[in-house]
Amino acid sequence: MRDVAVIGVGHTKFGKSEKGNIELFAEAAIQAMEEAGVGKGDIEALFVGNCLGGMAEGVANIAPFLAWELNLGTIPATRFEGACASATVAFRDAYMWVASGAYDMVLAGGTERTLVMGTPFATRTFAMGSDRFESQTGLTFPGVFAMAAVLYSKVHGIPLDKLREKMAHVSIKNHKHGAINPKAQFYKKYGNLKVEDVLNSPMIAYPLTLLDCCPFSDGGTAAILCSADIARKFTDEPIYVLGTGQASGGPLGRQEDYTKFPARVASARMAFKQAGLSPKDIQVLEAHDCFTIAEIILLECCGFFDWGTAADATEEGQTDIGGVIPTNPSGGLLGKGHPVGATGVSQIYAIVEQLLGKAVKGNQVDPVPEIGMTDNLGGDGATLAHVILGRSRRKK
Amino acid sequence: MRDVAVIGVGHTKFGKSEKGNIELFAEAAIQAMEEAGVGKGDIEALFVGNCLGGMAEGVANIAPFLAWELNLGTIPATRFEGACASATVAFRDAYMWVASGAYDMVLAGGTERTLVMGTPFATRTFAMGSDRFESQTGLTFPGVFAMAAVLYSKVHGIPLDKLREKMAHVSIKNHKHGAINPKAQFYKKYGNLKVEDVLNSPMIAYPLTLLDCCPFSDGGTAAILCSADIARKFTDEPIYVLGTGQASGGPLGRQEDYTKFPARVASARMAFKQAGLSPKDIQVLEAHDCFTIAEIILLECCGFFDWGTAADATEEGQTDIGGVIPTNPSGGLLGKGHPVGATGVSQIYAIVEQLLGKAVKGNQVDPVPEIGMTDNLGGDGATLAHVILGRSRRKK
Repeated sequence: MRDVAVIGVGHTKFGKSEKGNIELFAEAAIQAMEEAGVGKGDIEALFVGNCLGGMAEGVANIAPFLAWELNLGTIPATRFEGACASATVAFRDAYMWVASGAYDMVLAGGTERTLVMGTPFATRTFAMGSDRFESQTGLTFPGVFAMAAVLYSKVHGIPLDKLREKMAHVSIKNHKHGAINPKAQFYKKYGNLKVEDVLNSPMIAYPLTLLDCCPFSDGGTAAILCSADIARKFTDEPIYVLGTGQASGGPLGRQEDYTKFPARVASARMAFKQAGLSPKDIQVLEAHDCFTIAEIILLECCGFFDWGTAADATEEGQTDIGGVIPTNPSGGLLGKGHPVGATGVSQIYAIVEQLLGKAVKGNQVDPVPEIGMTDNLGGDGATLAHVILGRSRRKK
Repeated sequence: MRDVAVIGVGHTKFGKSEKGNIELFAEAAIQAMEEAGVGKGDIEALFVGNCLGGMAEGVANIAPFLAWELNLGTIPATRFEGACASATVAFRDAYMWVASGAYDMVLAGGTERTLVMGTPFATRTFAMGSDRFESQTGLTFPGVFAMAAVLYSKVHGIPLDKLREKMAHVSIKNHKHGAINPKAQFYKKYGNLKVEDVLNSPMIAYPLTLLDCCPFSDGGTAAILCSADIARKFTDEPIYVLGTGQASGGPLGRQEDYTKFPARVASARMAFKQAGLSPKDIQVLEAHDCFTIAEIILLECCGFFDWGTAADATEEGQTDIGGVIPTNPSGGLLGKGHPVGATGVSQIYAIVEQLLGKAVKGNQVDPVPEIGMTDNLGGDGATLAHVILGRSRRKK
């Protein structure tokens, strides 16, 4: 298979938007195409993540209408739905179609409107990413991750009050980064949280408070992928796809230990194996911090910290810029927002910016990192997807 | 890219089922795996079409739960939603992952429950595959194809009464085949329709009567794809994927002439080009006869007949077994049923059976065909996908 490069990325402002899914994606796609310097005739296929379009807008099969809106002709256009991991699944598929030699240049991304639905309906429809019996008991994602926090406390012998303080540091860090990211939903908000602010914000699902939870968001994201062999015709600084992973988990109730997602371990390892890299090679990470406890768990599943140590490491600053593994310097889902089907390529956008040294001051890892990774979760452990990006091509 | 073969297929009975989407897919998948003689450890990824799971069952991200149900471990599992073309899009993607060399063996298919929704709600949710503004006017698929019939009559100067008689022959033919196909929804029903029966059945959307329209259905379908190089380890008669196509159309109101879908022309040509074949090489066709007029239009778009001649050709028997291009010998959507997200791989199942000489007596093309094709439509011209299958490998 051929090497593949990302030569342009686009990203709407996240937050409440009056735009539809089609306009959100189009805005991001046009940014990406302009950044890459590619014209409409160059794009051979479109891959888009969208999760809740049927519920939010009464539009399911959105992909061909996106191609039409962007005037891309009759190119194949495919919608991917893998709950909150939809956009990474779309990106990974786009990668394969270029790596295989079938296409030289494709457009991938995601789009989502959730705020139009209101929180109660959005929460219920989000739960459609869970096991059919579990979601019908009334279990929604805040409840799932609340249980995960309690279990983490028990499994690792960290008193829940202490764990809540450590979790608060995830919220403080990611909101701090989001507050200086102009694309973030909480730009200029929550930039100076204290542990007490997180602990004392409204309780959502014990022990998770509002500031432990990512918001509902609207947004669109896009990336242009092309064969690495032609990437330098378009940019002096292509970013290469070094590895991708995807894996599946089953119902929550059938998982042996919900603080150690087997599918996340499998997906991250798949990406590392393809890239010929290990966690210590990753210099910046954008990861699925849907809840504060989720970031702690994923850092362990992906191999960045030993089991039971990521909460302490977070409190010590090891996941902030300057630490062992700078995590979510864009603000993550907590600070930047979470337009479900668009989030995966928002993470890829953030890593591309980091590797190009273009992240905003305060969020840019220094020195400019060579290799970064994304971690994207769909459902409560059902769909996991990872991408590793680098400034240099894969070593053969 | 490598050649790819289909080494096993599975298909539930179509019609009303008390089973869920997961059980329907699992039934078909187990059939396909048993036919191929492959075990759980052999399958490296799962690709599934599903359209309305969120509406019918409150389950959106079904793919990982299918992998779990089938005990396939943490393999990547992806849901594709391309309206009624979902399963062919999933199959085409599965094909690419094997052709690229990324995987040696994958499972692809589709699953859908629609009857649990009831006709009015199912009709409205089906319309989510259309343009967002057009669907919100109240336009549903029977109305779209009714307009197509009126336009066809006008464009080609065939009086509508005469056209309705010709369209009735599509219904007669496909119901005749469905009536002897034990997997068909209308098995042992409508096997001896007359033109008057079709014309006089209840009016749905003038000029389309009930017998001009395919039914809502429940069903699951599956296929095992593998690298052609290893196919003969599993079967003496692999069926090879010779070409695939996919293309996108925009809103109905922006199409110049709705009797000539540009996306269908583009997708079919893509498949023919990859296969190095032309319409005259195709000996059996399974095609998207969602309405009788749809079959007439698709035969022209795919190049089997000149514009404006397929209605006459149908009346003359040229699309029946023994004619120029035997079309829908399985019964098609009209006679076999249309479980939206499963239909594409039902068509592939039917072509595989034909190429193996295993179709039921009366439906088997004689002599056993060497090359067959599928045509699958999603929405009202939005997503088109084609697959060409053959008993011999592609000529290089």
